[in-house]
Parts: sequence; C-alpha cells; structure tokens
Amino acid sequence: MMAENRRLSLLSSHLTSRLPPIVHDSSLDDFRKRGKTLDKDFLLKNYLGTAYEAVMIARRHMTNNPLFNLLDETDFTRAELRERVVQQLADIYFKFNLSYERDAVEPLARSDTLCAVGEYDLQLPTRLIIHLLLYIDSIQNLGTQKHVEYARRAFQLVDYGSFSMTELGHGSNVASLETTATYDKNTREFVFNSPTFTSAKWMVGAIGKTANMTVCFAQLIVDDVKRGVHVFLIPIRDYNTHEPLPGLVLGDCGKKNGLEGVDNGFAYFKNYRAPYDCLLDKYASITPDGKYKSAIKNKEKRLAVMLAGLIKGRASVVCSCEEYMRNNLTIALRYAAIRKQFGLSEGSEVALLDYQLHRYRLLPHLAKMFAVRTGYLFLCENYVRIKSKVEEDPECLELAEHHAILSALKALASWYGMACTQECRESAGGSGYSYYSGLARNRNSQDVHITWEGDSSVLIQQAGRFILKSMQKMMKGQRVNVESLKFLKGDVGAVEYKVKFETAQELENEGVLDELLEFYINAILHRTMMKLQENATDAKDMVDAWNKTQAFGIQDLGKAFGEYIMTRELLKFVKVIENHSSVTGAQIRNIFYLYVIGVVEKNLTVFVEGGMSPAQAKTVRDAILQLCNQVAEESINIIDALAPIDNVLGSTLGHSDGQAYTRTLQKAEATPFVYDKAPWFPLVQKAREIGKKRL
Amino acid sequence: MMAENRRLSLLSSHLTSRLPPIVHDSSLDDFRKRGKTLDKDFLLKNYLGTAYEAVMIARRHMTNNPLFNLLDETDFTRAELRERVVQQLADIYFKFNLSYERDAVEPLARSDTLCAVGEYDLQLPTRLIIHLLLYIDSIQNLGTQKHVEYARRAFQLVDYGSFSMTELGHGSNVASLETTATYDKNTREFVFNSPTFTSAKWMVGAIGKTANMTVCFAQLIVDDVKRGVHVFLIPIRDYNTHEPLPGLVLGDCGKKNGLEGVDNGFAYFKNYRAPYDCLLDKYASITPDGKYKSAIKNKEKRLAVMLAGLIKGRASVVCSCEEYMRNNLTIALRYAAIRKQFGLSEGSEVALLDYQLHRYRLLPHLAKMFAVRTGYLFLCENYVRIKSKVEEDPECLELAEHHAILSALKALASWYGMACTQECRESAGGSGYSYYSGLARNRNSQDVHITWEGDSSVLIQQAGRFILKSMQKMMKGQRVNVESLKFLKGDVGAVEYKVKFETAQELENEGVLDELLEFYINAILHRTMMKLQENATDAKDMVDAWNKTQAFGIQDLGKAFGEYIMTRELLKFVKVIENHSSVTGAQIRNIFYLYVIGVVEKNLTVFVEGGMSPAQAKTVRDAILQLCNQVAEESINIIDALAPIDNVLGSTLGHSDGQAYTRTLQKAEATPFVYDKAPWFPLVQKAREIGKKRL
Repeated sequence: MMAENRRLSLLSSHLTSRLPPIVHDSSLDDFRKRGKTLDKDFLLKNYLGTAYEAVMIARRHMTNNPLFNLLDETDFTRAELRERVVQQLADIYFKFNLSYERDAVEPLARSDTLCAVGEYDLQLPTRLIIHLLLYIDSIQNLGTQKHVEYARRAFQLVDYGSFSMTELGHGSNVASLETTATYDKNTREFVFNSPTFTSAKWMVGAIGKTANMTVCFAQLIVDDVKRGVHVFLIPIRDYNTHEPLPGLVLGDCGKKNGLEGVDNGFAYFKNYRAPYDCLLDKYASITPDGKYKSAIKNKEKRLAVMLAGLIKGRASVVCSCEEYMRNNLTIALRYAAIRKQFGLSEGSEVALLDYQLHRYRLLPHLAKMFAVRTGYLFLCENYVRIKSKVEEDPECLELAEHHAILSALKALASWYGMACTQECRESAGGSGYSYYSGLARNRNSQDVHITWEGDSSVLIQQAGRFILKSMQKMMKGQRVNVESLKFLKGDVGAVEYKVKFETAQELENEGVLDELLEFYINAILHRTMMKLQENATDAKDMVDAWNKTQAFGIQDLGKAFGEYIMTRELLKFVKVIENHSSVTGAQIRNIFYLYVIGVVEKNLTVFVEGGMSPAQAKTVRDAILQLCNQVAEESINIIDALAPIDNVLGSTLGHSDGQAYTRTLQKAEATPFVYDKAPWFPLVQKAREIGKKRL
Repeated sequence: MMAENRRLSLLSSHLTSRLPPIVHDSSLDDFRKRGKTLDKDFLLKNYLGTAYEAVMIARRHMTNNPLFNLLDETDFTRAELRERVVQQLADIYFKFNLSYERDAVEPLARSDTLCAVGEYDLQLPTRLIIHLLLYIDSIQNLGTQKHVEYARRAFQLVDYGSFSMTELGHGSNVASLETTATYDKNTREFVFNSPTFTSAKWMVGAIGKTANMTVCFAQLIVDDVKRGVHVFLIPIRDYNTHEPLPGLVLGDCGKKNGLEGVDNGFAYFKNYRAPYDCLLDKYASITPDGKYKSAIKNKEKRLAVMLAGLIKGRASVVCSCEEYMRNNLTIALRYAAIRKQFGLSEGSEVALLDYQLHRYRLLPHLAKMFAVRTGYLFLCENYVRIKSKVEEDPECLELAEHHAILSALKALASWYGMACTQECRESAGGSGYSYYSGLARNRNSQDVHITWEGDSSVLIQQAGRFILKSMQKMMKGQRVNVESLKFLKGDVGAVEYKVKFETAQELENEGVLDELLEFYINAILHRTMMKLQENATDAKDMVDAWNKTQAFGIQDLGKAFGEYIMTRELLKFVKVIENHSSVTGAQIRNIFYLYVIGVVEKNLTVFVEGGMSPAQAKTVRDAILQLCNQVAEESINIIDALAPIDNVLGSTLGHSDGQAYTRTLQKAEATPFVYDKAPWFPLVQKAREIGKKRL
C-alpha cells in the first residue's frame, strides 16, 4: 500500500469516527501525585552525562516533527522504511555539527550523537554506528595520513561508509575469514576475491543499497604467503551512478527480525582490484619492492589491533540497550498506573502498579536500567582517560582492562535489555500484543544487540578470561595493578562467607553490600578455577578444558564481573545525586539497593552454598519486596524525568498524557481498511458451500 | 507489493543467479551418523498420542503443497496473509472430517486437528482454537437443545464463530466486564450495549473481518437487577451480505506483534437486539413471565461454569507451545551441527553442537519440550476420563484438579516456550537475526501464549491456590483425595532435607529424583504458608495478604506443581518407550534425567537452604553437563524423528537437507529488488551536497 493512500485512509477514518465519546482518564496523573519531590532536571543531566546537549538538540528537533513519529511508521513497507530512515538521517544529522576537527578535541561527540538519535529507534543509530563509528574509527585507528580525507568526507556524509567484516560462514572467528586480498606486485594493487560460497560478506549494514565505501576485512596474501586478516578501505559503488563497481556483486540480504529500515546486504568479490593505498597501513605495510612489514609480529595481537574500530561501536550497544530499557519501562510503568483490574468492590479496581507482583516484575528492571546507564557513563569516561595511551601503545594494560569491562557490560546490557523488554511486554497483558504498544517493535530491534558487535556469549568469556589470566599472574607472584580487579585475593583457597546482617535495614548498607559482592565474585572465581583445574586433567588440551568450563564457570564469572563494575558505578552516581538533593538522592539510593540486592537474590545459591543462612536469604527476599514497594511510589516520576518525548516513544500505552485507552481506540480506527468488508469473503462463502453439503 | 509482481521478481532473480557455485555440505549428515539407533516411528507415535493420525493427514496434505510454505509468506502484506490463512483453512479443513456426531464419540478429534495444523504456524490453529474450541465449546457446554444446530453448522464452517469475552478495559477480571445485555420483557429480547469507551469487545479473533457469529459475554440485567456475566450466541454480520448487523460497529484492531493473518477486531454495541433464545441457558434462564432462574446460586461459581469453554482452548495452547519449541529446536539444533566456528587448526573448525556451552544452552530446552508434550498428553487423557463426570456436576473436585493442573501447565509451557524460542534465536548468532531463519516469526507468534487464554501470571496463582486450599482442608482434618496432591504432608512443620546421593550416577535414579521433587514442592509450600501467615498479620485483609505472597511464594508454588506433574508424566512416557526398545528408551531416559535435574539446578537455592550440601550441588551441576553431552550426540536424530516437514518448518537454517548456507544465499537472492539500485539514492545525494559545503 502506498504511503499516499494510507494517509488518505487515515484521514477519512478520523473524520468519521464510529466510536463512543472519549472520557478523560486521570489515573496516571493521580499516580504522579503520590511521589515525593524529584529534581528531574538534575537527574536527567547527570543520567545523560556528556550526551545531555546532543539529546536536547534531538528532542527539540523531533518534537512534533512529523518525520519522527514511530506510530506513523507501523504500516510502512520495507522500501518505505528505508527511505524514511535516510530522510531522517539527512534531516537531523547536520544539527549535531560533527566534523573531523571537532572530533579530535571532543572524542565523545559522535557517541553522544548516537545516544541522542537512539532515543527514537535503533534504525537511525544503526546507520550511524556503522558509518560514524565502525567505518570512521577503522580509518582513524588503522589508516595513515593519506586516509584522513576519507574520514573528513565521512564526517560530512560526502561518502557513506560500511563495515565489511562478517561473512556468511564466519562471524565470531574473525581470524578465519575467507575473503582474500592478494597483492599484485606488477601493478601495486590488491586483488579481492570471495573464494568459496561461504565467503560472501554477509549482513553488512548499508552495503545492500546505500553505501559507496566500505572497510573490508580480508586475508592479505603477499607472494603466496598468508599474512592474516588486514583491513582495506575501498569504494564499492560508482560515486555518480551508484552502480556496483566491476568485480563486485552487491545485494540485499532481505527481511530481518527488525531494523527493516537498514539495508543489510552481501558483497561477493570476483577479481575486484584496488590500488595499494587502500590498505589501512598504520600497523602493516608492503614496501614498494614488495616486502610485507608489520610493527606487531604476533598475528593474534595484530588481529586484536585491527578490531580496535569496534570499541566505540560496542559501547554504543550498551547505550542503546539502556535506551530500550528506558523506552519499554516508560510504556510498561505508565500503563501499569493506568490499567486497573480486580479490586475489593465494583468500580474501585486496583492499578497493576499497586500489586506487589507487578512491582516485583518491573522495578528490578528499572534498577538494572540505572546500572547499565552508569556502566555506560563509565565506559565513556574511561575511554577518554585512556585514549592517548592506547594510541601510543595498542597493547597496553589499560586497553585490556577496558576491553574486559566493555565485553562484560555489552553482554550483560544485551541480556538485561532483552529480559526487560520481554517482561514489559508480558506485564502489559493482551494490550502488549498490539503492535501499537511499541513493545514488540522494540523487542525485534533490541534483539540484535545480543549477537552483533561481538556475540554476547563470546564476549562474556573474554571478561572471564581477563580475570583468570590476572589471577594466574598473581599466583605466580606478579603484581596486578588493575583498579577493577581489586577484589582479587591472589590465592585459590576457598572463599569464606562472613557477612553479617539480620534485618533488611542492616542489609541496606554500602559496607555490607560491598562485602557481599566481593564474596560473590570471589566465590565464582574460586569455583571456576577449581573446575578448570579438574577439566585440565581429563580434557584433550587447554582449549578443550577452557570450553568445558564455560557453563557454571567462566560465563558466570564474566557476568559477576560486569555486575561488580556496574554496582561500583551506580553507587558513584547515587552520591552525586545525594550531594545535590537528599530527597532525590534517597530515591536513587533505593534503586541502587534494589539493583545490588537483586544481584544477590538472583545468585542466592552461590551465597547459601558459601554459608549464608536461610534467615539471611529470607531477609534478602523481603528487602527486595520492600524496596519494590518504595520505588514503585516514585517510579512514575522517575521514568517521567528520563523518558523520551511522546512522538519518539511511539506507544499508545505509554504516552505521557495517560490516555492509553483513547489512544488505543484512535490508533485502531486509523488502521487502513478498519471498517472495510473482508476482500476474502468469497473464500469464506466457498468453504460454506462445501460444508453445507456435509450438514 | 502485489503477490503477482513478487512471484515474477523471484523468478527472474532465480534465472540469473550472480552467486558462486554451490558446494554440498555434509555436516548435518555427519552428525546424524554419530547417534545410536533410534526407533523413530515408535517415538513419534507415542509422542503425538491420539493426534498421530491427524498429524499424518496434515503432513501428507502439506508436503510440497505450495499453499503451505512459510518461507513463501515472508513478504506478504497483512491483507495477503489473511487471505492466505482462510485459503489454507478451507483447503485442509475438510480432510479431517470433523462433525458434531464424530465429536460426541471422539472428544479429542478437534484438539488433534489443531495439533496437526499447528505444526505449520499458529495462525491456522488460532483461527480454529477460537472457532472450533472456544465458540463451539461455549455452545455445547452452556447451550441447550435449541442451540445444537449452531454447533452443527460451525463444525462444517457454515457459520464462522468468534469469542467475544475480552474488552478494552477488562481481560483477566471477567466478572467486571462492562457490556450489558438488558432483558426487554415486552419483546422477550436482549438489548446489548457498550456503555463506556472501555467496554468495546477488544482483540477478538475473527470479529474484525471474518466471523458471522459470536458468543458474547455480557452482564445480564433483568428488571434492573444485575445478574452477573452470562453468555449469548448472536449473529454479528448479515449471512449473505456480510455487513455488520444494525446496532453493531465491527472494526479491525490493526497490527499485532505477530499472527497478522488473523483479523482480531473490536465490537461496539449500540442497542443491538437479539431474541431470547440467544441466551445460552443451560445454567440460567428467564421464564416467559420474566423471572431470572439459575441452578447455581453462587455468582462466582456460576461465572466459573460460564468459562468452561476455555478448558480445551487452554490445553491447545500447551500443545502449541510444545510445537514452537519443537520447530525452534529443529532449526537451532540442525544449524548447530552445520555451523562451525573456531578450532585447533585452520580448516578444521568445530561444530557449535560440539561445544559444551552450546549443548548447555539448547539441550535442557529439548528436555523441557518432552516434559511439555507429555504434560499435554496427560491433559488430553484426563479430559476424556473426567468429561462425563464434569457434565453431570460442573462443580466437582475432578474439574478443580484438572483446572489447577491445566493452569500450571499453560503458564509453564508459555514461559518454557518463550525462553526456548529466545535461546534458539540467540544460539544461531547473527544468522538468527535473518527473518528467514524462522526464529523471529516463531517468537512473535509464540509470544501471544503468555497473555491470552488466561494470563500466565494469573493462571499460575490458581494452581497455587488449589494447593493452599487443599492444605488448609487437611490442616482442618479433612481428607484430600487428589492424586496430584499426594505430596501433601498435612502439617506445616519445616520440611527436612534428607536426600542421599553423592555421584551423578546416584543422582540419576528415579527414587532419588522423586525424593528431591517432593522436597522441592513441600519446601516452597512451607515457605509460602509461612509468608502468607506473616502477611496476614499486617495486611489490610486476606486479599491483600494473598497478593503480597505472590513473589517468592504462590507463583513459585504453582510452577513447582507444574514441574512436579510434568516430571511424573515424562517418566511414564520413558517407561513406555523403554518397554518397546531399550536403546531408544535409554536415550529418552537421559532426557528425563536432564529435565528433572534441570528443575533442581534452576531452584538450587531452595535445596541448599533446606540442607543440600555444596558437594551435592556440584554433583547436580556436573550431572547436567554430562547429560547435555550424552543427549547432544543423539539430539539430531531425536529431533529428526519429531520435526515437521521442511516446507512447514519454513527455515533456511533448519532444513533437513542440511544445506543452510546454500538456502540462505538462495533466499536472499530471491528477495524482491535484491540487486536494484536504491530508489532513495537522490536523498543520499542531497545530503552529500549539504556536506560538501561543510568540508
């Protein structure tokens, strides 16, 4: 159906509503009044951090802007959606005033822009994550002076870039990519080929239709010697005609679980030629007389450096996960204040948000949302702190630590995000099955975060590996001077549980919670090391032993590490808020307690196996329910303070005016062909005729 | 895009493939060869139970039938999908030879039909659950002789029915529905009205476009006295013109999270009139002189009886959850045998299904799938057993027990199903984000099971309530003669943990597992009762105390009850298979162990708090990993035995021929406009021009 027809259909149905008159629903406002005062502006500013300005630019620009209205896009075809996203991008991009020069002095400007447009939807930031982060960062990190102009052009959308790493047959295992780039010494060119049917570059964002440039990961072959994966900056479409260049087949991968507005595609190379300068040659080059040279001798370490372009992209995933949690919780919490069901007497039904069970279903996710956001703020801050060090020495310990934390946070945020999304959807009951609730759209987009930019189940191993390797160093007597690992004890003796608390009040104490978290991570570390040792004796080799220690071991260790870091960061955040306002601070402190005690509860087995008493375990559970009650009273105001604007949220259930029922009716009535007779009625009649003979 | 154009586009792209030549991939066949012999036919027959014949009819009919090919439907518009589903229904329905007469002697014939068409997709069974189960069962259970002809007509699709219970403002709380049916003694008619804007019948399947009849739940008002919710059988569209009848506004609710082929709609009544006989009057009637009469005096009990039409529909949800688990596991397991990543040397990568972590991610879901299926088989068997008793006495204990088990199983199956779907999707990595994997389509359909036919979080309470009420009876000294409650001890003393096992071998023992499960459910029961007592002292009233005992209490109790029942049924199933073949039986026994020990592991806190030692807890974890390894070797053959046919599975990744990569490439190349230039290229150029000025 064409957009034009659809608009007419909407218009005509609006003019002739057949529905009952609307009654104003004050439920949401009533709930708002129950909360204590909250300094919303201060909370938002600190919650957004350096992204605050960019978010304000985006919100101002998008408010009542018909180009940014998610609920209007619900019936778009794939082609319409793609056009729309490019329109949106062109419309808003230059407002952020990004440039090569500004980037050098404000290294978070690009990430902040993504955070700003990411409130809307993942499609827009996806286009930008690929182009602005993966593509530009690969050029900046791996290229030399001659490549700078390409970065400049990309900053101004003069080129549109893409990131050709993944192939049909290889994702996580980048070292085994099959695309080849063979150096031709006669012409000083590279010849690119996709030698097998699994080697097509696959699901590459924007390569299907939009991009004219790409950074391509390929096995470099010089004089028949395989030199491992290197990165090349190559044009893929003619700048003027936009036709694929000779030697390239570029196509569309088709329908995805979500993000239909982004053209993920494939690229198949057949003797595609590009001149020598396309090699991003900061860490590896070929001399004019054809000799391969690299400052990094170790192939694995060289590959790790080649992947540096992923760092900011991966952090942006953490940011986006939080945004989805925020959007979904905005919808679910507001609807829970509006939706009433059951009650003591007819006509006085109780809001879902007044039920303990509903509070327990939603509020721990609100706490996790804060944890993810403060974790993201740390990633930004730490990135700026270590940036110049990393540029000097890409093998430095600071980068290894950053990578471990980033890996744990990316994985955890994606899992937290998906669980939150799903719980929000379920908590909205049947109304959550309407697409106009926004919850399924969000789920289908958010889903990608679990497997892209590093599969979460692989990344979490890398966090675990960092801890285990550091522990091994300590056991050899070496010093491990890493802030985030200060919990490491340096011996493998069993970890003793000796945390003392009885009441919920005693549990809600920074010192006690710190002890609990330290016990938690050390207990899992101990279990993992014991298991690794056990496996080492009967496994084929250490790789096998390692693989056999994933479940109930390394995976749990990586998770615990992420939770440990987020707890630390959330507490810092609480203190900033408390220093400004004790009333607002107290509300955020409860969220902190709910997060940490939630971590303890979800992993209670670890504690009880370690020696926590059943009475303490009961206190943990009681404390959570009590905190859920406290946070519930403030939750609408808290989410109001952080929620995106209404046309960006795009939900009939979550609109800030609280008129969920009215909006649901209106949106349904605006459905194309809402009152039309079924065009397939003749089919129904045909079946009837068969049936009549059988009566 | 019209279906016709799409077909042409597919055809032309197939004829001019630009992709590399295809290489046969033997990975899946190689994995198949690793398993022991398996009596696939015997396993399938017993797994399907009475549905076996119907499933075979459906599989035969659908094999290579172009009308049943899910992968062909991926680009259908909403209107096209709806037409397709009606086409499919008319095409296959009469093959099953259902009739009023046959139904009387084969009470599972309808459910078996749903099971058969449900292998394909949820859209088809959704159409039939509503029409064949909810609509017909309401007529049969609540109507009298004069209504029989309507059931007859429905069996032959001469009428197409719907089920108007839910309203915009009320779902779970059926007692508070707002639609009124006022008795007009002058004309002996009922006058139907939707008195408020939240009272529109909402998201009613097939009412949007297709149905000509409905059973409508409305508050009966006789002489200004409210008599509570009653059920009425009314026409909604003119039989010949298909136009809505006077006094009715019928519309389409629009886009949903999935199931777009089903027209869920709304109905708004404005002085709609229907004659007296539309009241389904088995349990309540109005005498010719206008007096209301009912054999069931208690309003709540009367409502419970009115809802009896839901029993079979709810059981069908359990069936469908299992089918989704089966379809998704077919995709995920086969792909895991094909997909290789990392390895000791280049060119010898390891299949995902050979990684312990991957086994741990997928195989416990395979075990749960068996548990859900055997739980469903029990529901069928028990339904037949108690049917005539229930018809005699709708308030009998047998029905209460059936309802409690059904509630627990429906809730658990929906949660198990969604978790399984999501894990399958994630386990397929980036490939799982392609819509052609089938995994997101399945997730978006399956999602509805959690909140329809009774919201799972509400249903699980009803299971918990049944146990608690029975326990209260026992404590008063009354006998509780209920087979499924034989674990009840009758006192509230703390439950002592005294299960003895050390090794995994000792744990994998029916007696030990039985003791563990008994401890488990009693420990949760004890915790729940203590908490309820505690809450009773400081809650407003018992309803409030009850609501405050949901989290960590009643909800867990309901779940444990469902797991207890499914364990019992799965064991029965194992024994049937073992009696026939020891080799096949041993494989299914491992699945049983994996299920039960999985329940123990997921709830380890309960055990450890009760006294299980850390050493035993470690044995539990070790046993699971060991069982995952054993089951993994057989898993492809087991899933092959049960999997639906390929065009019904509709997945590029899960096809039985194992050519996942080839099929992925081919499906992508068949995407409409796969190689066309972006129609929005002018927009890209426009942005470039702006950017150039900023360079």
